[in-house]
Amino acid sequence: MNDETRIKDTSNLPKPTKRRLVELLPLLNECESKKITSLALSSLTGWKASLIRHDLWLIGFNKGVKNGYFVKEIINKINELLENKKDSQCEKQETVKNCCIVGLGRLGAALLDESLTKQSMFVIKAGFDSNLNRVEILRSTFPLYPANKMQQVIKNENIEIAILTVEQKDAKQMAERLVSYGIKGIVNMTNQILSVPQNIKVENLSILNALNLVI
Amino acid sequence: MNDETRIKDTSNLPKPTKRRLVELLPLLNECESKKITSLALSSLTGWKASLIRHDLWLIGFNKGVKNGYFVKEIINKINELLENKKDSQCEKQETVKNCCIVGLGRLGAALLDESLTKQSMFVIKAGFDSNLNRVEILRSTFPLYPANKMQQVIKNENIEIAILTVEQKDAKQMAERLVSYGIKGIVNMTNQILSVPQNIKVENLSILNALNLVI
Repeated sequence: MNDETRIKDTSNLPKPTKRRLVELLPLLNECESKKITSLALSSLTGWKASLIRHDLWLIGFNKGVKNGYFVKEIINKINELLENKKDSQCEKQETVKNCCIVGLGRLGAALLDESLTKQSMFVIKAGFDSNLNRVEILRSTFPLYPANKMQQVIKNENIEIAILTVEQKDAKQMAERLVSYGIKGIVNMTNQILSVPQNIKVENLSILNALNLVI
Repeated sequence: MNDETRIKDTSNLPKPTKRRLVELLPLLNECESKKITSLALSSLTGWKASLIRHDLWLIGFNKGVKNGYFVKEIINKINELLENKKDSQCEKQETVKNCCIVGLGRLGAALLDESLTKQSMFVIKAGFDSNLNRVEILRSTFPLYPANKMQQVIKNENIEIAILTVEQKDAKQMAERLVSYGIKGIVNMTNQILSVPQNIKVENLSILNALNLVI
């Protein structure tokens, strides 16, 4: 595999690699030195240095690099990947991804806070709930709508991603509705596993599942 | 690899397999029929049937099984695994894992609800915050304490798992404190990546990371 192939292939990165790169980003942003070694990254993350070198190699950094990687270069590369830019030479465009929160119960209401997506490319455009009371009473920095406006708002605001915080019993049906309204990705915070078409991405953030994984 | 080896090895299951089994559990619990095929599980989850068969094979179910798996058998096996029971013949004991919530800001406060861990082996024993006001004002079904009582309460209540919902800037230092107090697993809901000793398990439930993974 030559360098050309390697770098062009980044759109098909293995999911665990992508996950680690996403987790590296805030760490690198905090880094005060110009360069960082895989060993230093290893001690910060707990991941093996060889694994980190392999991940970085996959996105175009040579393994035999002396005295570490340039922090800024890695940050730029990961950001490029996240914005799905195939060609790093192309003109820099600000990519914004519009999101919504679906379900404004205790957990959903806790997300009505701009700081959630501060300094990221994500903008929360709307919150939805079938309970009109919640929609009217809750304070938020973005507009809240009754659930029957969902289709229209998702279309008008060009919303691509939904954070799903409805009750578990409503999760499946709501996911199907969201997909039919054009949502492309779902961050699923319910304990319900979702069944969606292959082209829809789902990330499960169930607290109960996470608890099961740390014991 | 013979059946003996396969079943005894379950404590070292690959993490992606364990993750999928944990996600299958609520689905199987809802299942109304006695048996289920890997194809049916595939259509419910979106995972390949061959992958599901392999996961189930790893925990002791034969691949060539006709007319599907017995739902109850899979549920029992996964529950066994989660309770870290090496010997399925041993007397049934109720295993309870005590948890706490660390940080009672908007997100942490949203978790002050028993239903979060309903019908699971997890019991939330305490919530902590350095802000005395929050500790006194918030309503909760379990006791809330000021942060300076953390070490004592974690020890007295035999708490093993922490759900970390502090502000991002405090996350690293708090994780270190929790580990020094004997916490064995952390569900990290901050955007901060944590550096913990190898024997401590961390599951990252950062919403921002999840958003990055669904685009």
